[in-house]
Amino acid sequence: MLIETLAAAGRSCFAAASLRPFSSSSAMAKSKFEYVRSFETDDTCLRNCYIVVRLDGRNFHKFAEQHQFAKPNDDRALGLMSRSARSVMEELEDITIAYGQSDEFSFVFKRTTTWFKRRASKLMTHVASQFSSSYVFYWKEFFGEQPLLYPPGFDGRVVLYPTNRNLRDYLSWRQADCHINNLYNTVFWTLIQKGGLSTTQAENRLKGTLASEKNEILFSEFDINYNNESAVHRKGTTLIWEKRNETVSKRIKRPNEEEQQVPVTRSRKKVEAYHCDIIGDQFWEEHPDVLEDDT
Amino acid sequence: MLIETLAAAGRSCFAAASLRPFSSSSAMAKSKFEYVRSFETDDTCLRNCYIVVRLDGRNFHKFAEQHQFAKPNDDRALGLMSRSARSVMEELEDITIAYGQSDEFSFVFKRTTTWFKRRASKLMTHVASQFSSSYVFYWKEFFGEQPLLYPPGFDGRVVLYPTNRNLRDYLSWRQADCHINNLYNTVFWTLIQKGGLSTTQAENRLKGTLASEKNEILFSEFDINYNNESAVHRKGTTLIWEKRNETVSKRIKRPNEEEQQVPVTRSRKKVEAYHCDIIGDQFWEEHPDVLEDDT
Amino acid sequence: MLIETLAAAGRSCFAAASLRPFSSSSAMAKSKFEYVRSFETDDTCLRNCYIVVRLDGRNFHKFAEQHQFAKPNDDRALGLMSRSARSVMEELEDITIAYGQSDEFSFVFKRTTTWFKRRASKLMTHVASQFSSSYVFYWKEFFGEQPLLYPPGFDGRVVLYPTNRNLRDYLSWRQADCHINNLYNTVFWTLIQKGGLSTTQAENRLKGTLASEKNEILFSEFDINYNNESAVHRKGTTLIWEKRNETVSKRIKRPNEEEQQVPVTRSRKKVEAYHCDIIGDQFWEEHPDVLEDDT
Amino acid sequence: MLIETLAAAGRSCFAAASLRPFSSSSAMAKSKFEYVRSFETDDTCLRNCYIVVRLDGRNFHKFAEQHQFAKPNDDRALGLMSRSARSVMEELEDITIAYGQSDEFSFVFKRTTTWFKRRASKLMTHVASQFSSSYVFYWKEFFGEQPLLYPPGFDGRVVLYPTNRNLRDYLSWRQADCHINNLYNTVFWTLIQKGGLSTTQAENRLKGTLASEKNEILFSEFDINYNNESAVHRKGTTLIWEKRNETVSKRIKRPNEEEQQVPVTRSRKKVEAYHCDIIGDQFWEEHPDVLEDDT
Repeated sequence: MLIETLAAAGRSCFAAASLRPFSSSSAMAKSKFEYVRSFETDDTCLRNCYIVVRLDGRNFHKFAEQHQFAKPNDDRALGLMSRSARSVMEELEDITIAYGQSDEFSFVFKRTTTWFKRRASKLMTHVASQFSSSYVFYWKEFFGEQPLLYPPGFDGRVVLYPTNRNLRDYLSWRQADCHINNLYNTVFWTLIQKGGLSTTQAENRLKGTLASEKNEILFSEFDINYNNESAVHRKGTTLIWEKRNETVSKRIKRPNEEEQQVPVTRSRKKVEAYHCDIIGDQFWEEHPDVLEDDT
Repeated sequence: MLIETLAAAGRSCFAAASLRPFSSSSAMAKSKFEYVRSFETDDTCLRNCYIVVRLDGRNFHKFAEQHQFAKPNDDRALGLMSRSARSVMEELEDITIAYGQSDEFSFVFKRTTTWFKRRASKLMTHVASQFSSSYVFYWKEFFGEQPLLYPPGFDGRVVLYPTNRNLRDYLSWRQADCHINNLYNTVFWTLIQKGGLSTTQAENRLKGTLASEKNEILFSEFDINYNNESAVHRKGTTLIWEKRNETVSKRIKRPNEEEQQVPVTRSRKKVEAYHCDIIGDQFWEEHPDVLEDDT
Repeated sequence: MLIETLAAAGRSCFAAASLRPFSSSSAMAKSKFEYVRSFETDDTCLRNCYIVVRLDGRNFHKFAEQHQFAKPNDDRALGLMSRSARSVMEELEDITIAYGQSDEFSFVFKRTTTWFKRRASKLMTHVASQFSSSYVFYWKEFFGEQPLLYPPGFDGRVVLYPTNRNLRDYLSWRQADCHINNLYNTVFWTLIQKGGLSTTQAENRLKGTLASEKNEILFSEFDINYNNESAVHRKGTTLIWEKRNETVSKRIKRPNEEEQQVPVTRSRKKVEAYHCDIIGDQFWEEHPDVLEDDT
Repeated sequence: MLIETLAAAGRSCFAAASLRPFSSSSAMAKSKFEYVRSFETDDTCLRNCYIVVRLDGRNFHKFAEQHQFAKPNDDRALGLMSRSARSVMEELEDITIAYGQSDEFSFVFKRTTTWFKRRASKLMTHVASQFSSSYVFYWKEFFGEQPLLYPPGFDGRVVLYPTNRNLRDYLSWRQADCHINNLYNTVFWTLIQKGGLSTTQAENRLKGTLASEKNEILFSEFDINYNNESAVHRKGTTLIWEKRNETVSKRIKRPNEEEQQVPVTRSRKKVEAYHCDIIGDQFWEEHPDVLEDDT
């Protein structure tokens, strides 16, 4: 009955409206359907594990071509990725570290986070959403008048890591991936851009070469020391929260005194970017607050 | 050893570069860390169920205020939501129907879809990402020169429905929700905008009223027949794929004939928007291809 | 402090007991640890799906040998499996059908069951437990004085099926498996037991043969029509609930009448066993109550 | 077609067998149904976490009454629980520690186990099955001629713990639970058995009392020092693997020597039972191999 009434009312979207508005309690209709909520399943992440959300660009090979990204690395594109990642971190404070390279970015929630009650779906969709809207929003800051041709897509996933060792190995895995790809791409495009090879020739030249041989090609043929290449390309981008002292000048008027200009120092948390090794211990020793104690 | 080398190289981001590039195989390093992949868990959706991804705006109450959305409905904002949803559907073809109202949108993947191997995380993050980047990308089409102040966020979830009945009940639930909220909001803002009440007065006036009483207030006090209100506000927006014949004129040159202008008709799938009842049977009878047979 | 006290008390299990019992509130201790409950994850089965629990014998090849099971089929062992399955069904009434063959048994909970709040872990462990304890409990009924040498193990799994078609195809899959294995085993052991072949010779003889060829071997060489073989071996065992009228004689004393013997007929639900085809439609047409309507 | 043939053959379970056995390839039928396997979902446990399976008796209150368990503790029943748990540990070697009290037992798989590929369903059903069949199998060892009236049931669950701290807190939680219940039950049954109270009177007497007050009742009214009560009741049972040296005498014949009796010492792993505190550090310091290093 109720449903019929609603349906009848619905039909009116093509027909003449009835004289008198329908008076059924659609709240009752809603409650009749509300059982469908019980089909939602709980996807709470296991407690006391680091929650990693990794995003990957969808069809970014094509996206890069259509937007004339420089080869092997486009600093505008990398800058925009980092800017978007920063926007995610500022929106979801329980992310303690993020690492990005190429068209991917990983976000690490602290192991004790209770954001979204640790619901995996909420965490990963919010990260994916905030990152994607930021990418379009900040496009102009990095690409100026070059237009964005269509809205890009990223997909994401959630992975849990129970220990600090596991988490560090995850981040090391991504940075090792960055290194391998960037070394390859650097030699590949140098062979083409400076060596005059075709893409096929460059591919054949590199087939089966070790890292040492790739370094050697750069060094002996093009006088390039790979270690002097830009750190952001070789190491990717690591974002963490840091306390910074900020000194601002304030006018203060104390009783029985003249108003005067006083320097005021405040400690503020800010997202800072690093482009250095995170595989070894040094980075972690210098930033002991990023990881929580296992015990 | 390898790791030490990488770490040492890493340190060079602050130090002078070594004379000779390091020659370790970082591919080995990568493989040492690659075990972390096995921490990913499989979140494949149960076969032969409809997969629904629902997005909800994050803090859209505040977002609406900061962007001066009209009350009770802002047609620019609703238009932008639908435009973004269309962008999602065009990107992920296995979505057969989408339904939106207010700051939420639900996307239904056909029960036999194999997109992303039915991995829940991929499906929901891609939808969330594409929707969000589209929302910023198409903002100007709907808001013109009014600037977008910051990148908005949406969160999402996945719900599975095993039968057509369950799926239709889900969509009915969302449309009943639309109806209840819109009726309330319509009376609430009419009392304020036309009746001169304060928000508190309007709230008190509506406390505990039935749908019929709300209709009556509109009708007897403001001469408004709720059923004549805009269908997009009362019914929300339903997007489906439809085949449309398109006739274009083509210049064709046949052998031994003069070139001539010929009308060519092609059938093309397009996303079409409806603002009508989807609780009753009529809509489903008129669009039998949206649902697959249960058996 | 509390914990120390408890620990101290604990130490007393090797030491002399203290003069006075400790007086700490161990309820407090318990509540301090109770956070570990939040590590349990929800494994509720999707609503409106059939829940199938399948058990498989662990190392039953060895178990069969050690208990001298007859080849190719041991009727005592099959009887014990069915008896144990019946015990499971009588304990968990929402199981509407069970199907078994060899050392496996599948139990189907009705799609709307709310047993254990549909928690997969509870459903499958209870089935596995009840089945296993019954197997040992009823051993004697089937094996008489032959001793059970050690407690056998079964493992289990849960699978969900959204539609009647999917569920019937699951059961058909198991019965087709029964058929293939039993036909093979029947020919294999006939070649050995009646044909005098060694196991290796029998294996080689059957390598690559079609079902029709296996039937032919039985028919032309041993005068065995496979279709006349025992139905329980060819078709396995299907258990369902059936209403049976039971007439018992009761002594009844009505006012102003003599006490007399009266026949009383009651309808009682009982688990009944079938050994017939469940792939075709006939079985399902004859027992329409087993499956619920999809819509 | 194939299916029809099978179905037709199936019908023969009520009808006369056909003259010639059917010759269809039921392997084809099987493969037609095999798609149903893809409905199984992966329930692999997160790597590098302890996997705890806890079993609880089903309706053991009633079971205890029907089998005249002694109050407040029945040593035969507790012995049988431990015996069954030992059987589980001997069957699944990757269980490093088990803890039981009352009608429950928890089994801890080492964090790096790869048993059953870490599939939760397999692990918990196998534990539940082995425990249950053992319970019936070993009944006689503990209850002698007192018959087991029906096969008992246990249900189980899986919980993951990422760190040693979390795991120890889980075990502490269960031991604190043991303590609270046993203290209560000890006083409760002492009030009845020695104090002559009814169950209702005993209940009222204990309502709201602290642990210290319960200890006091035992001490001052019944001259019982709770700490002197049996450790197995107060602390439950902890099972771990331990290396034990076993010296057996062997007859050995060396060349050019007379055969002689020689003592041979072998190290063998055995399951050992403890009834002591596992909340404090001592137990863990004395058995450092039970837990793996977090890092």
